[in-house]
Amino acid sequence: MKSINVVQIGLGPLGIKIANYIAERNNITTVAAVDKNPELIGQDLGSLSGNSESGVIIHGNFAEALEGQKVDLAVLTTVSDMVRITPQIEEILEHGIPVVSTCEELAFPWDTAPELAEQIDKKAKEKNVAVVGTGVNPGFLMDALPTFLTAPCQHVDSIEINRFQNAQYRRIPFQRKIGAGLSLQEFEERKKAGTLRHVGLTESMQMIANNMGWKLDHTEDIINPVFAEETIETPAMTIPKGQITGVSQIGRAYSEDQLKISLVFQATVGEPESYDEIIIKGTPEIRSKIEGGVNGDVATSAIVINSCSTILRSAPGLRTMVDMPVVSFFS
Amino acid sequence: MKSINVVQIGLGPLGIKIANYIAERNNITTVAAVDKNPELIGQDLGSLSGNSESGVIIHGNFAEALEGQKVDLAVLTTVSDMVRITPQIEEILEHGIPVVSTCEELAFPWDTAPELAEQIDKKAKEKNVAVVGTGVNPGFLMDALPTFLTAPCQHVDSIEINRFQNAQYRRIPFQRKIGAGLSLQEFEERKKAGTLRHVGLTESMQMIANNMGWKLDHTEDIINPVFAEETIETPAMTIPKGQITGVSQIGRAYSEDQLKISLVFQATVGEPESYDEIIIKGTPEIRSKIEGGVNGDVATSAIVINSCSTILRSAPGLRTMVDMPVVSFFS
Repeated sequence: MKSINVVQIGLGPLGIKIANYIAERNNITTVAAVDKNPELIGQDLGSLSGNSESGVIIHGNFAEALEGQKVDLAVLTTVSDMVRITPQIEEILEHGIPVVSTCEELAFPWDTAPELAEQIDKKAKEKNVAVVGTGVNPGFLMDALPTFLTAPCQHVDSIEINRFQNAQYRRIPFQRKIGAGLSLQEFEERKKAGTLRHVGLTESMQMIANNMGWKLDHTEDIINPVFAEETIETPAMTIPKGQITGVSQIGRAYSEDQLKISLVFQATVGEPESYDEIIIKGTPEIRSKIEGGVNGDVATSAIVINSCSTILRSAPGLRTMVDMPVVSFFS
Repeated sequence: MKSINVVQIGLGPLGIKIANYIAERNNITTVAAVDKNPELIGQDLGSLSGNSESGVIIHGNFAEALEGQKVDLAVLTTVSDMVRITPQIEEILEHGIPVVSTCEELAFPWDTAPELAEQIDKKAKEKNVAVVGTGVNPGFLMDALPTFLTAPCQHVDSIEINRFQNAQYRRIPFQRKIGAGLSLQEFEERKKAGTLRHVGLTESMQMIANNMGWKLDHTEDIINPVFAEETIETPAMTIPKGQITGVSQIGRAYSEDQLKISLVFQATVGEPESYDEIIIKGTPEIRSKIEGGVNGDVATSAIVINSCSTILRSAPGLRTMVDMPVVSFFS
């Protein structure tokens, strides 16, 4: 296959990781890079990641970054919300370039931001290219994969998805992000500030419901603390009994007062088992479990890269992970 | 969504089952039916399945069956091989009608029957409609699902798929089909006659390899008997110790002398555990298991029906289950 030339837009930790992962792969190359941060502008992309020089100089301006480059698509890792991502996508589409983004709300924006979704869809179709929001969650484990697992079902009553992660051996920033070691009061403050929230449960439920043909009356997205039943010691911290070990986020979606979709995303330090479980209640019933779970650190970057090949073969417009061809590893 | 009008072609046990399953569903209706069997021609489709009258009369001729009907697609359940299915598909395509077929070799014919595949692809594109071969296996459990499970992988070394089924509580014809109760000599005769063989392991491996970007040097497809370690009693038969309980079929695919794909499809009376397992060896490693396995009786009919919605939204040409949008249940 022909190699894919990527412009990387957004060089936060995720953008840098994706650029590093692309550097390891065949058939895909980062040929241009953009970030607004003045400290990064003018630097070589390779220097950010401790790699050897890449020859790709970081630009502050998108149009400038493209100069002299043949670019096949943009990887956009900047913001999580539709309001801020939409003008960024429109600017890229102006150049006729397809977009793969990690923007969580873009994974399925048709219910929560229908006007912005239509705006992007229309522009992408005008330019005859496709746009998708992806990631391991939202984008795969709690929406696209469960949707595909209903393919052998004659009937589906309801869907239950459980993602449990033991954060004991994860990066310290991840442990902090899930609230490990906090008191209840600190947890409530962080919850109020919105920094504990995983963005995407609602989008995942809407993506599933849309495919099942379920009209949702309402959805819930609830964040609860999980408490240590005994003292937990990790290399990074000690969590006394009764303090918080992490977060349990629950999504529920109802149609005609029936609970149709229920998602639990729980990440704690000391969680007894890590796994990703999907239960399709229907005919036949399907119970699928990924033992050990899928490590989100690697997976999010990898699925973005793997989607790059698929988006180029996809119908124009704003796609989701289930209305374009099946994404897979490629080499 | 608009209801899908289907012409059912082929009214063997699978075709009848699909028609029954369609009758249970919303948004899809069988409006015409075709079979060459003179005993069926002129009968009402509903009478075949013990259902009430459907008003759909079985025709021997495809063009006649279409008369006065608005048909959106054809479900084709006649033969398993590319040589015989190709002219049947071409006849349907002449009418500009998309096709979903259970023909096993059609699931991925690009390596084993490239000329026929291209012939179908070309004609489908001319008529601006899509064609797909599907089923639970080949078509999902041992190819499309494992392919999708590589989406979160930065690297894939090899893929191992195990489908184990306890046939103790399955239909008696299924028990006989897998060779339960045979002596070794009878097993070898049936193996030679080709009646024990599950068609599709090679196609499944080729579909996976094509997506991973692996060039296969050679593939193997081996059929072995499984022997009773002690006497097994079922409602249908008694299998003495040392007699055959069923079949174990092994597919292996090699690239540059490395074993890249290994499939085991084992169905026996008395198998200790039924399950579908997928192991992606790579980064990250993914171990997925469907406890109890997916019951092929229900699943094959259901996946054909579910594919009907997807094929209508798919790009024209000969598709596979991974190069059209994600198939799912719909209602």
